[in-house]
Amino acid sequence: MANDAARLSVMFADDSDGAPVTRADDAGVLYGRRSIAGFRKARAAAPSRTLLRRTYRMLGAAAAVVVSEFEKTTGGIVLQTQVWQLLDDDWKIVSAHLTYPRPAVDTRVWRVAGSPLVAGKYERGTEQHDTGLPLAGLSVAVKDLYGVEGQIIGAGSEAYLEEGAPQQRNSWPVQRLLDAGADVLGIARTDEFAYSIAGTNVHYGTPPNPQASGRISGGSSSGSASAVAMGQVDIGLGSDTGGSVRVPSSYQHLWGIRTTHGLIPMEGVLPLAQSFDTVGWMTRDWRLLERVAEAMIPKGDGRHVPQPRLSGHVVWADELLDLVSDDMAQALGRWFDGLRGSPDLAQADVHIEHRTLGDMLGPDHGGDAADRLDGWLNTFKVVQGYEAWCNHGEWVSKHWPTLGDDVASRFRVASKLGRDDYDAACARKSRYREDVRLALGSDVLLVPSASGVAPSIADASIGGESIERSRTATMRLTCIAGLSGLPAVNIPLRTADGLPCGVCAVGPAGSDVELIAFAGRLSELASV
Amino acid sequence: MANDAARLSVMFADDSDGAPVTRADDAGVLYGRRSIAGFRKARAAAPSRTLLRRTYRMLGAAAAVVVSEFEKTTGGIVLQTQVWQLLDDDWKIVSAHLTYPRPAVDTRVWRVAGSPLVAGKYERGTEQHDTGLPLAGLSVAVKDLYGVEGQIIGAGSEAYLEEGAPQQRNSWPVQRLLDAGADVLGIARTDEFAYSIAGTNVHYGTPPNPQASGRISGGSSSGSASAVAMGQVDIGLGSDTGGSVRVPSSYQHLWGIRTTHGLIPMEGVLPLAQSFDTVGWMTRDWRLLERVAEAMIPKGDGRHVPQPRLSGHVVWADELLDLVSDDMAQALGRWFDGLRGSPDLAQADVHIEHRTLGDMLGPDHGGDAADRLDGWLNTFKVVQGYEAWCNHGEWVSKHWPTLGDDVASRFRVASKLGRDDYDAACARKSRYREDVRLALGSDVLLVPSASGVAPSIADASIGGESIERSRTATMRLTCIAGLSGLPAVNIPLRTADGLPCGVCAVGPAGSDVELIAFAGRLSELASV
Repeated sequence: MANDAARLSVMFADDSDGAPVTRADDAGVLYGRRSIAGFRKARAAAPSRTLLRRTYRMLGAAAAVVVSEFEKTTGGIVLQTQVWQLLDDDWKIVSAHLTYPRPAVDTRVWRVAGSPLVAGKYERGTEQHDTGLPLAGLSVAVKDLYGVEGQIIGAGSEAYLEEGAPQQRNSWPVQRLLDAGADVLGIARTDEFAYSIAGTNVHYGTPPNPQASGRISGGSSSGSASAVAMGQVDIGLGSDTGGSVRVPSSYQHLWGIRTTHGLIPMEGVLPLAQSFDTVGWMTRDWRLLERVAEAMIPKGDGRHVPQPRLSGHVVWADELLDLVSDDMAQALGRWFDGLRGSPDLAQADVHIEHRTLGDMLGPDHGGDAADRLDGWLNTFKVVQGYEAWCNHGEWVSKHWPTLGDDVASRFRVASKLGRDDYDAACARKSRYREDVRLALGSDVLLVPSASGVAPSIADASIGGESIERSRTATMRLTCIAGLSGLPAVNIPLRTADGLPCGVCAVGPAGSDVELIAFAGRLSELASV
Repeated sequence: MANDAARLSVMFADDSDGAPVTRADDAGVLYGRRSIAGFRKARAAAPSRTLLRRTYRMLGAAAAVVVSEFEKTTGGIVLQTQVWQLLDDDWKIVSAHLTYPRPAVDTRVWRVAGSPLVAGKYERGTEQHDTGLPLAGLSVAVKDLYGVEGQIIGAGSEAYLEEGAPQQRNSWPVQRLLDAGADVLGIARTDEFAYSIAGTNVHYGTPPNPQASGRISGGSSSGSASAVAMGQVDIGLGSDTGGSVRVPSSYQHLWGIRTTHGLIPMEGVLPLAQSFDTVGWMTRDWRLLERVAEAMIPKGDGRHVPQPRLSGHVVWADELLDLVSDDMAQALGRWFDGLRGSPDLAQADVHIEHRTLGDMLGPDHGGDAADRLDGWLNTFKVVQGYEAWCNHGEWVSKHWPTLGDDVASRFRVASKLGRDDYDAACARKSRYREDVRLALGSDVLLVPSASGVAPSIADASIGGESIERSRTATMRLTCIAGLSGLPAVNIPLRTADGLPCGVCAVGPAGSDVELIAFAGRLSELASV
């Protein structure tokens, strides 16, 4: 109980014989003595506790299972199952499973949560299909950028929250969800001012990634994503400026959409960079993603707004595989082969088309396509930074010490951007946008949703360099939809190791609802 | 995975050989195949899930440990460790430990919870002792009867909550806690209108009792009690009319106080029966119980209000053991013997005095003491019922179908009480009150906090008869402090089986702070 890491590690068996040694708790399963030892080192001290009850059962002469209940000094009961084995004359733990007392709310995921916090506009006790409301009884995690009546917008910052005042009304998207019958279960964490794609909030910690334990959640819609992945809500309301819905979706095996820029009103939502800010959401299956889109997207005052029809052509560039990690490239390649090999392609009216990355981005400009993406990313960052500083510079200037290092360094760079930089970047942005839209027509592009699987939290805590590298590599991909203002739907995939990754279907402006259904169809074709 | 209860039960080993078979999950540990089979029958269906990952390790030739990760269809990961053993040519499970995905908040315990929901009035980041505030940084669960600014009072009723309006200001006790630096973490469940001591709320379920899994929480301060017992908060703010702090404290091994009637203002608190309603709170140790008392109890506009000095005499009647279950009587007897046998009694200025129960209640009236308590309870119920109907009759008359059977039946009886019944009961109450206060002087009475350990939830769900019986037996004991308006502090004890029970120290009016310290001293003397 003294958490003597060396001693405890020795208590665990060596797993050099190939038979796995495991340790499970609420955070997931650790496989192998090395990862268990790593966990112990990271933990400050084992919780102080007293034994309440213990039973054991021998499993032959050389093994036993021991079940213990402890009372934690700070309240609550710890349950422990240990399997011991006699190995080389020494009793060793070969498997342990622990249950710890739970906090009232996981404050890495939620700022506040209720049952629900705000009830949707339907009569309780009515069957969903009798309400006439498309989202009746479904639960939503609202990213802490959206105005909710009576609640302060915290924007992932303790100081900002403390100085804020309760909102007088719901933001447009939140009101829309309530009107459709959905319950707001609570307000979920975000990176500070949504200015990150990692989810490693310095004030509240990194929300857990249940699909990849020990790895970051992705952000900035981090709390909403984790809440969906953990099954705590049906819908995670997020926002996507530079990848903040697509990246956590990819890291946590979720369906997610970044909607067409400007399609959904953002009244009452705290902006980061208006040229790119979009409403987005995440779900565990694509049909619900589509249902939310149908409920959320304005229908134009009752008139029917014609949506662009997709051509059925799917555009892919093999060079994209060079821009992601090996394990993810393998997963994407395998998935794409599955799609291309589907016997149902023709019947589904889906046509695969190979292009070069250059042609994908627009045929008018020469040069190395990967280098061109660096230029795109730079353009994106200048426009984003300048607008972020316009929105938050005054507040940030007075609160530098409250910011996490990563977000502070971004604001510091942003604070130095001049109007000329911005105007030039805006001009480039318009050109890129036209190029892509022209090249795309009514086809659907496939773009990796991130540059790899979620980085491990341990990497994040030793300086964040690998996170910063993966951020740049990822944003080189996500900025394509960002700059062009196009909708993008994450299709969740897995690497050979079972870790989540994803590919985005990027479609024409305004095709959002149809794009989700199309992406759903691709997913089903590829998996048969 | 089909939750075929018969099949799954057979998979678990027979434990007739005396070696225990166990199954652990978030709700606690089940010991023995019978209780595991009982649990399976009670569960509607095992959650639908797909296997993500599985490893196993042989433990010799006749045992193995299998670790599996499943993805739940409704989101989140299920972790499972199973120990299998070859017994009579059949592989059987001898131990299982499961971790299920967690809800955002346990809605049996909380209506809403935050990080915190309302921050205490101290500067974050300051060390507690530098704030000058006695409760800085401590967290509180507030029973859903107390007004909290911006929040509706729900009173444990869905319909009442739906029709309610947000409070314009904090209730007196909540404001007092915030001013002392405590954070309101959230709003905790109560029985409907606090008219129960069971905690089995029909709308939201029974909060878990971490100290006695499978047993009820006790109520009506059920959510606050469970939140403290589970270590989710430091302080559970409750109220006690007929035992609503003392009973859950006794059932969940907590320190708890019902304060002197009228000592703490109840402005902004929804009443049940004003003649008995008191503010109370629960903690895991008596020193914090005392600290809260010092912060909470008004000091009389800055003037020092002299507290009654306790005599140091502790009054005990052996007949009280006849009024509780055998296991609890044994626990109380053992504890009392420990106290009486303490070599430090004299030095601590504690003097044990045996009296008859009759003398304890007041020497002026003859008859069998246990019968007299029935009369007391009847008097209590009439006054409580009449006042409860005055407070809530109008609302209840329009909402009968919304109420749980137990609470509805109480209101139905209450609705038939006439003014004459009430006046006569009030007169008896005044007499009893004088009698007890006269008999007590400045001594401390010891009274069992309940008539037994917490009844099992299974008993509660098969009609609640045993719960109703234990309610009556318990209230015969709790009404002593209720009728006399005296403070009572639960001292937590355990039966030989490790189940929580408790004894109340009942002291003179206004002795609250000193009484807590005295009860703490008794507890320490008895346990040495």
